[in-house]
Amino acid sequence: MPVDANAPIEVTGFSWVPPFARGHVRDIRVRWALEEAGKSYRTRLFHAMKPRPELYFEEQPFGQVPAYGDGTVQLFESGAIALHIAQDCETLLPADPAGRARATTWVIAALNSVEPMISELNTIDVFSAGEEWARLRRPGAEDQIRGRLAKLGDWLGDKTYLEDDFTVGDLMMASVLRGLDGNPLMDEQPRVARYYAHCIGRPAFQAALAAQMADFTEEAKEGELA
Amino acid sequence: MPVDANAPIEVTGFSWVPPFARGHVRDIRVRWALEEAGKSYRTRLFHAMKPRPELYFEEQPFGQVPAYGDGTVQLFESGAIALHIAQDCETLLPADPAGRARATTWVIAALNSVEPMISELNTIDVFSAGEEWARLRRPGAEDQIRGRLAKLGDWLGDKTYLEDDFTVGDLMMASVLRGLDGNPLMDEQPRVARYYAHCIGRPAFQAALAAQMADFTEEAKEGELA
Repeated sequence: MPVDANAPIEVTGFSWVPPFARGHVRDIRVRWALEEAGKSYRTRLFHAMKPRPELYFEEQPFGQVPAYGDGTVQLFESGAIALHIAQDCETLLPADPAGRARATTWVIAALNSVEPMISELNTIDVFSAGEEWARLRRPGAEDQIRGRLAKLGDWLGDKTYLEDDFTVGDLMMASVLRGLDGNPLMDEQPRVARYYAHCIGRPAFQAALAAQMADFTEEAKEGELA
Repeated sequence: MPVDANAPIEVTGFSWVPPFARGHVRDIRVRWALEEAGKSYRTRLFHAMKPRPELYFEEQPFGQVPAYGDGTVQLFESGAIALHIAQDCETLLPADPAGRARATTWVIAALNSVEPMISELNTIDVFSAGEEWARLRRPGAEDQIRGRLAKLGDWLGDKTYLEDDFTVGDLMMASVLRGLDGNPLMDEQPRVARYYAHCIGRPAFQAALAAQMADFTEEAKEGELA
């Protein structure tokens, strides 16, 4: 669905982030869920390197993006927002309670059992690049990811998705795996690589990615170095 | 509720873990939720240092504890299990959809925006103690936690809980904060420390803690060093 300035749903994002982060800001997870659900939304954008307005911390206690409001509820945490959008979208959550609980399990697995390891590697490679601790820690951090992806590959086997059909659990797992996009660790697990490619090949993800990229509008006047 | 060998709900845990981990294995989060919900459960216990049975990976793809089954659904990830238990427990999730979404937001905030930083510090202090990378990284890891706890304290202000009443979001946030139990970082944020103490003072948490501790039965024959 197009971004629509008159939509009742509002999602916060950025008008500027460093080039390496473009396409990876977490509002993309919410945009993806909204695309799967066929719901349009408007955006409210901040410059990543400038302080958030003080009132924003009432919406997002840590000052991060995304925050979400739909006139009924105000939420933060992309995982929780995606789960909320999924509540009345059968593409994201099946109708039966057991299937809903299984999908939720995979959302949490992505966010709590897979993402922290991938985030650590990104801290090492991007935010702490060149630091001695990062150099020393890197092999151990890679090994942790290797072990976890192997188990994920074992689970997937020949399945297309984590459960029978695509759910918000796949949306979140694929979103988390994007932190390894282009990393040889992913290629070491062909089942995971295939699964990941299948998920991000969905038209809803591609639309979400294009929408986030289109919202980075400040580079011309700000330059690439903030 | 007592652990009951005939209860339909089964939770996996450990019969032996190293002393520092006792009371901190993640099945305590599920036990706590079950205590708040007034549901009894049985346990199936493993020795932490011995391989899991191969079939267990069909229940828990990463081989961790807890896994949960109630005859209707099989789940893993303590966060997802707690959310599942909360579905029909008004102590853990309010009846109104907006309140439920807010509580879920805090569950995800605990697991994805607070716990990874605390886990990193625990890796540094426990699993990588004495390593050079850990010594070099520690100040930065502490600063990350400091910043996040300050924002959490700002949010809490004088409130007793994260929202109006106790929810599964508080259960999960307090569970995550236990990784800082006794750490001066917590004392630097009196609002967080007070909140944490209030949460773990709940009788349901104390019952869950006692139940997990009572299940460590193998030390006599295994010794403290596995």
